[in-house]
Amino acid sequence: MYDLIHAKKTGGALAPEQIQAWVRGVVDGSVPPEQSAALLMAICWRGMDTEETLALTLAMRDSGDRMDLSAIPGTKVDKHSTGGVGDKTTLIIGPVVAACGVPCAMFSGRGLGHTGGTVDKYSAIPGLRVELEPEAFRESLRATGFANSAQTGDICPADRRLYALRDITATVESIPLITASIMSKKLAGGADALVLDVKCGGGAFMRTLEEAQALARSMVDVGRAHGMRIKALLTRMEEPLGWAIGNALEVMESVEILKGWHGECPLAQMSFRLAGEMLVLGGVADGIESAMEEVKRVVHSGEAMERFRAWTRHNGGDVRCLDDFSRLPQAGQRVEIRSGRSAWIEALDSRSLGILAMELGAGRRNQGDVLDLGVGLKVHGTVGGRVEAGDVLFTIYAKAGVPIDPDRFLAAVCWSETPLAASPWLLGVVE
Amino acid sequence: MYDLIHAKKTGGALAPEQIQAWVRGVVDGSVPPEQSAALLMAICWRGMDTEETLALTLAMRDSGDRMDLSAIPGTKVDKHSTGGVGDKTTLIIGPVVAACGVPCAMFSGRGLGHTGGTVDKYSAIPGLRVELEPEAFRESLRATGFANSAQTGDICPADRRLYALRDITATVESIPLITASIMSKKLAGGADALVLDVKCGGGAFMRTLEEAQALARSMVDVGRAHGMRIKALLTRMEEPLGWAIGNALEVMESVEILKGWHGECPLAQMSFRLAGEMLVLGGVADGIESAMEEVKRVVHSGEAMERFRAWTRHNGGDVRCLDDFSRLPQAGQRVEIRSGRSAWIEALDSRSLGILAMELGAGRRNQGDVLDLGVGLKVHGTVGGRVEAGDVLFTIYAKAGVPIDPDRFLAAVCWSETPLAASPWLLGVVE
Repeated sequence: MYDLIHAKKTGGALAPEQIQAWVRGVVDGSVPPEQSAALLMAICWRGMDTEETLALTLAMRDSGDRMDLSAIPGTKVDKHSTGGVGDKTTLIIGPVVAACGVPCAMFSGRGLGHTGGTVDKYSAIPGLRVELEPEAFRESLRATGFANSAQTGDICPADRRLYALRDITATVESIPLITASIMSKKLAGGADALVLDVKCGGGAFMRTLEEAQALARSMVDVGRAHGMRIKALLTRMEEPLGWAIGNALEVMESVEILKGWHGECPLAQMSFRLAGEMLVLGGVADGIESAMEEVKRVVHSGEAMERFRAWTRHNGGDVRCLDDFSRLPQAGQRVEIRSGRSAWIEALDSRSLGILAMELGAGRRNQGDVLDLGVGLKVHGTVGGRVEAGDVLFTIYAKAGVPIDPDRFLAAVCWSETPLAASPWLLGVVE
Repeated sequence: MYDLIHAKKTGGALAPEQIQAWVRGVVDGSVPPEQSAALLMAICWRGMDTEETLALTLAMRDSGDRMDLSAIPGTKVDKHSTGGVGDKTTLIIGPVVAACGVPCAMFSGRGLGHTGGTVDKYSAIPGLRVELEPEAFRESLRATGFANSAQTGDICPADRRLYALRDITATVESIPLITASIMSKKLAGGADALVLDVKCGGGAFMRTLEEAQALARSMVDVGRAHGMRIKALLTRMEEPLGWAIGNALEVMESVEILKGWHGECPLAQMSFRLAGEMLVLGGVADGIESAMEEVKRVVHSGEAMERFRAWTRHNGGDVRCLDDFSRLPQAGQRVEIRSGRSAWIEALDSRSLGILAMELGAGRRNQGDVLDLGVGLKVHGTVGGRVEAGDVLFTIYAKAGVPIDPDRFLAAVCWSETPLAASPWLLGVVE
């Protein structure tokens, strides 16, 4: 172990066998945490090349259970987002991709801090099973064309242990370590193809385009080196994605998108584009243009929404709530916050809005916190949009009796006295 | 603690209070070793400025006992060497400096690996007390003008714990960490002035002149920032220092130097120069030239040797062995190794000769190994010197019956067919 640390400290590359031995030692406890901590910091310092990162990814994948999807015909596609505020694209993509005939096998997580998790959002649908055992997962995929679940069983225990160590040693921020952590779980999920949504900006884990590009490059290189079909979109996260933040509210917004109510809003554009990329990797479309046409067709025809109903029913959820939102968890009070000025919105601080939603009960400050699925907020403005004094900017959905301080929400808005040029949500593609 | 690691990881400077809190947590066990390991690696990566290094030095010094020499009049001087093979300068310097009227208060260590330790060398003198309690240390200093001992009591426990951690996490090699480790113990030793011998080359911890300069600069800066009188010599360690490697053999060679038998050999030159610098820092000489004259005077007059006898007697040692080497520990067998060729010596690998001496029993492979004080080797050649086939190159002093493989010793010699330019032993001065 000393030799590994010294080699990495002095800028050398580690052999796959060395990395495998380390990861085995992390799981069986034979490598002391202080040696792992030193190696993790040396990796932050010196980085890892693609071969090393792939070796770490595979060693972490092989440390625990893996999903076997080989019995399902076709190219199974998955999607991963690096996490943002109000990001409910997964809820929209599953039914769309399935309706287009590509088996969509997605594993999702729970939220922590200012970002929510897809599993929490699905939890707002009464009765829906969000933790599927492998056979139930495969059955959902067979029966409805898509499956989405928290990962069950002992998935990547090496990643869990290393993450706990990284969390207290300031070694979370490292491109190869982030890559291996994400990709090990994705590879354990058993899909053949993967579309990555790497978010970039003030509300995202990667603040700058350069960082986001580097992470996307690293993940695509590792996936490709393993023979996976993989592509990454770099997307802007400078404002919440869509108008809803909070679990039941985000289910509602997703259903509205699937029903075509919001047309080509940025959330729909991004969800449809990600779905389109999945169709291309899944082999049912020649290129992104024809894929997008197919995506829009299944939305406009209602096939995507019908697929969502079928999936919800199959997995025990109350399908009536998808057409009658009063059956979803509700908040005890609703408070409108109005603008005091007339101007253009220059920025919406998605990180602080995510934290405000967390404080309302929509998210977790600590692992294990219990959520209030009905609370959250609607953001009525968008960056670049014009607001007049007296317009409603936010609707807050809170527990009854909880005091709401409008100024904390208004502080998330940055104003401009002049109109702004539109900023594209798609910043780049890495493949 | 997370904030400290993150700050250092991203290149920031730590405040003295942060460093103090860390060191306290290392000693009381409240900081988990994995966090310390990550911080140590981040320090290897980002370094520390003089203020940080001084704060770490003082926090480590204050973690344990300190020697109080305030009752001894005069400027108490100490010397530190970064360690080499055959380095017995401390044995020579103590009596010389004391004979010149400067109180010389030196703490020394035991050897490990290919380098020996001064305390082990002194142990070869039968009866000599080499671990003095504070009052006995001060009494030796008062009575004989010098004191040399292993540090007793609980000296720098923070350094001990951090060193054990650095040892298994490949974080030993870091200029600020080496500086704080050395300087904390030196400051705990209570001297007012310090001369550093920073060795450089194949047989030393610092392989290149640049590394040695950087370490010397760092130690001098920290000492000076603390108000200490301090100076460093950069000295070459490409061959063993003097002809003896092994504890009793090195006592003999030191006595011979103090008796003036070897004139101006490199070992005498280096020892006398270090002693001269100590006289200057100790305030009894205006400059290095007059200091050197005074050093040579006390050697030639026999005052230095007489001081060594007085010190040995004072501290319980058998003073007769200083004039009758047969009373020192002896080896069971003596083997001469002769040269098979006629050529000039281009290099003598002091590291491998140190390891060979360790294997004979003169040094420790592991802490706690028991030494054979009589064994070791004499090196008859010097770098640049001419050797004829059949000349004795090494005399091996070994336990009786131990097989000696001449080729392993001869492999330490690198030959040249042409004469070589002389290399100076003094490579630079940092003050």
